[in-house]
Amino acid sequence: MENLHAHNTLRSKYLGIDTYRENIVYLRADSPVCRCEGFTALTRIVVHHGESSIVATLNVVHSELLDTDEAGLSMEAMKRLSVGDSDPVTVSHLEPIGSLSHIRAKMHRYTLTEQQLCEIIEDIVAGKYSNVELAAFLSVSSGNNLTTDEIVGLTKAMVATGQEIRWRAPMVMDKHCIGGLPGNRTTPIVISIIAAAGLTIPKTSSRSITSPAGTADTMEVMTNVELDIERMKEVVSRENACLVWGGAVSLSPADDVLITVSKALDIDSEGQMIASVLSKKKAAGATHVVIDIPVGRTAKVRDREHARSLISKFEKVGHEIDIIVKCLITDGSQPVGRGIGPALEAMDVLGVLRNEGGAPTDLKNRALLIAGVLLELSGKVEKGSGANTAAGLLEDGSAYSKFMAICEAQGRFMEPGFAAFRRDVIALKSGTVISIDCRRLAKLAKLAGAPTSPNAGILFVSPLGRKITGGDVLFTVYAESQGELEYALHYYYKNQSNLIQIL
Amino acid sequence: MENLHAHNTLRSKYLGIDTYRENIVYLRADSPVCRCEGFTALTRIVVHHGESSIVATLNVVHSELLDTDEAGLSMEAMKRLSVGDSDPVTVSHLEPIGSLSHIRAKMHRYTLTEQQLCEIIEDIVAGKYSNVELAAFLSVSSGNNLTTDEIVGLTKAMVATGQEIRWRAPMVMDKHCIGGLPGNRTTPIVISIIAAAGLTIPKTSSRSITSPAGTADTMEVMTNVELDIERMKEVVSRENACLVWGGAVSLSPADDVLITVSKALDIDSEGQMIASVLSKKKAAGATHVVIDIPVGRTAKVRDREHARSLISKFEKVGHEIDIIVKCLITDGSQPVGRGIGPALEAMDVLGVLRNEGGAPTDLKNRALLIAGVLLELSGKVEKGSGANTAAGLLEDGSAYSKFMAICEAQGRFMEPGFAAFRRDVIALKSGTVISIDCRRLAKLAKLAGAPTSPNAGILFVSPLGRKITGGDVLFTVYAESQGELEYALHYYYKNQSNLIQIL
Repeated sequence: MENLHAHNTLRSKYLGIDTYRENIVYLRADSPVCRCEGFTALTRIVVHHGESSIVATLNVVHSELLDTDEAGLSMEAMKRLSVGDSDPVTVSHLEPIGSLSHIRAKMHRYTLTEQQLCEIIEDIVAGKYSNVELAAFLSVSSGNNLTTDEIVGLTKAMVATGQEIRWRAPMVMDKHCIGGLPGNRTTPIVISIIAAAGLTIPKTSSRSITSPAGTADTMEVMTNVELDIERMKEVVSRENACLVWGGAVSLSPADDVLITVSKALDIDSEGQMIASVLSKKKAAGATHVVIDIPVGRTAKVRDREHARSLISKFEKVGHEIDIIVKCLITDGSQPVGRGIGPALEAMDVLGVLRNEGGAPTDLKNRALLIAGVLLELSGKVEKGSGANTAAGLLEDGSAYSKFMAICEAQGRFMEPGFAAFRRDVIALKSGTVISIDCRRLAKLAKLAGAPTSPNAGILFVSPLGRKITGGDVLFTVYAESQGELEYALHYYYKNQSNLIQIL
Repeated sequence: MENLHAHNTLRSKYLGIDTYRENIVYLRADSPVCRCEGFTALTRIVVHHGESSIVATLNVVHSELLDTDEAGLSMEAMKRLSVGDSDPVTVSHLEPIGSLSHIRAKMHRYTLTEQQLCEIIEDIVAGKYSNVELAAFLSVSSGNNLTTDEIVGLTKAMVATGQEIRWRAPMVMDKHCIGGLPGNRTTPIVISIIAAAGLTIPKTSSRSITSPAGTADTMEVMTNVELDIERMKEVVSRENACLVWGGAVSLSPADDVLITVSKALDIDSEGQMIASVLSKKKAAGATHVVIDIPVGRTAKVRDREHARSLISKFEKVGHEIDIIVKCLITDGSQPVGRGIGPALEAMDVLGVLRNEGGAPTDLKNRALLIAGVLLELSGKVEKGSGANTAAGLLEDGSAYSKFMAICEAQGRFMEPGFAAFRRDVIALKSGTVISIDCRRLAKLAKLAGAPTSPNAGILFVSPLGRKITGGDVLFTVYAESQGELEYALHYYYKNQSNLIQIL
């Protein structure tokens, strides 16, 4: 189709429109290119600038917003195309995307091959899929609709389309929590203990997908997390560890694209999740990985049967890509610590690392359990003595020193703070807390603004078994705007009977 | 949330941006409303004007395109909100959409109840779903992933959310073809015969979903098809029949929304298809329906086993909503007639109705078969003599007179014409046509511009069994722009060995 480019030259125009991750190109309805090429609204077209090109969705403009020889571009599109205002761009038709037929086959319950999954992931990384097409792929692979072989294929495809980091250490440790439990922020503590023990543990974490905070969001209130691979390697060579955002190092560019849409849809997919986790571990060079699986009625994994099926898939896929995977089933019946939201969770983490008197012991004990298993997995300590060794490294201040050293190596340390607006939520009756809905609690924290507003969220002080007297504070909501505070409280008052049950 | 509206009053601004069916609202990043409410790009928000409101996706503007007290609206959003330039609008948060949890449940293979399907369809009709959420719903109900009970529930939900038309006639006939066979445009012929026989057959048709033409697209090149219910009733009371676009009479507003996204995704869903067809028949007041199911290797239905499963579901769902459904399995191994694309198919239809010597006999015979079954189903003629009666009404000119009368009653009759650009595709070798890929042929016609350009498409003259001599014309491509012509031919030359096999 090269011959079509010549007469399609347009000038790019900055419109300053933020469409988040979607590339949009704006063309005049009466422009020669729309008329000649037969482009209509929502057509997917290719925009070229120099050597680079992107696929974008067309919005047709019927006003003077643009001249007929201009192509407006969304901010994301300008960034990806590295184009400035008034630069020359050309547009052309998008060839049909072959890998979409695999998604249609999957809708008809065909099992996909590794080759087909590779083609899908390559097209996604090349930016060829629209958000609607990404939603279709996520939907057909949602729930437990991928076979173990498909998950292996998806994992390998994700590794193949990103960059892989290699380390000099023969053993590279890592951990992951499959999430769903608000406030379960063990990672910074575990990494500090393991690095203090002299093991290599270069941790890359994600930002929140559907939760009020990811480890990267929490770390970002205390230090820089957007390090490139070179900077990350410097930090690890100095401190044996780092605590950075995985997206900045492009370990799994396919996953970064998919996460945007799965976040908008608020869906979970077992296969996508396993592939996302293990592809990033593989790309980050991990050889030994501990996976924390909280099980509870309102956690991501609701019963032990589901946990066991997940464990068998994690271990099988790990084996196929040469990683030793050890899964732990943990209690998922209530939030961990007190903070829910990036900054509030950071305060809990610092409390534990600093051995403060009021620090949440549940968070501390979970971190020691995971660190203990990692120590045993490495062969560095004997079976059964891992948690004790970990406790020693935490309580003698080694872990805290290591944490501060990591933050400094990443550029700085900052103390977390509180959001501008706060409201206490008061118990209306007396009794004992008998059940907590972690999903609704997470939603409440998100409505308050977490993680977009890092200091927003919930300070939760009503664990299971607490004796409540009418008038007690159940939790405190923090938000950066009055609107979000109202919105979160509105949701609470509509759902309070389900959110925290007091009997 | 009413208290939030007051300080969120903005002036609407016409930007002239066509986003097709998606509502987009553009707000300045530094506007008080974005800052106070915590809105960010892709947030779904409610826009109010007077008594009406819509849900829209937010695009954040970082330039002078808008003032901080203005809300830019996409053309679709302005239309749906009935708002002009500079009118006052307010914005507020969107309450979480409850029915999305049903879609997540379906991802985990739960079966949905009629009540849950109703909630989904109501939210879709209220415009609460984003395109990405619609894609998720379509994907989880794609293929044969809906149970028969779910299809019944979906059908009833679609009927309940649209308007129903009532007719004085005790018996109201209808027909439908499940499609996938290019050029199979029997409807205008069948309707003309049945109306000429004195039966009531108020036909509403769809525009193309994933094919190069729907019956409404084909009829539109000859007459007006966008009639409201009152005009439609006038036409039927005069001529016993009409041939209009179903979307204009809002028979199934949910389906109209879903079709946009299923078109963008190019996916088929058995359950969505059955619900779409039968909900529209029910809403249009039909009591007796014949369904044409072409079966062929590259048709929508590939084998008789699948056809039989489809028939049992069609009849079961029909029974549940009080419609007598009769399904016909027909040959789906090759295109019908010669034209593929709205105008080219209209020429075939007129050829048959006018009893022209060169008119395609395969199209004629299929129309007579269907008309015959409808006549027998009505009890008006004896079993076995339907096709003969139909042939009489066609060959004596009654059907043609009726067709012209229907077009005149709908406002006018126009002769179809050819597109501006054409190219003959020539056989490179001699032999016999042994196989035709209907899907690729349809795609070729779409790439040439059909149905968006109604005169574009393919004139196909190489049916199965034709003896070809190298140099013969296999088919002719018509397009309204050079770009589309090149694009279609490019696709042909990449796929020619699969498209038409000559041995």
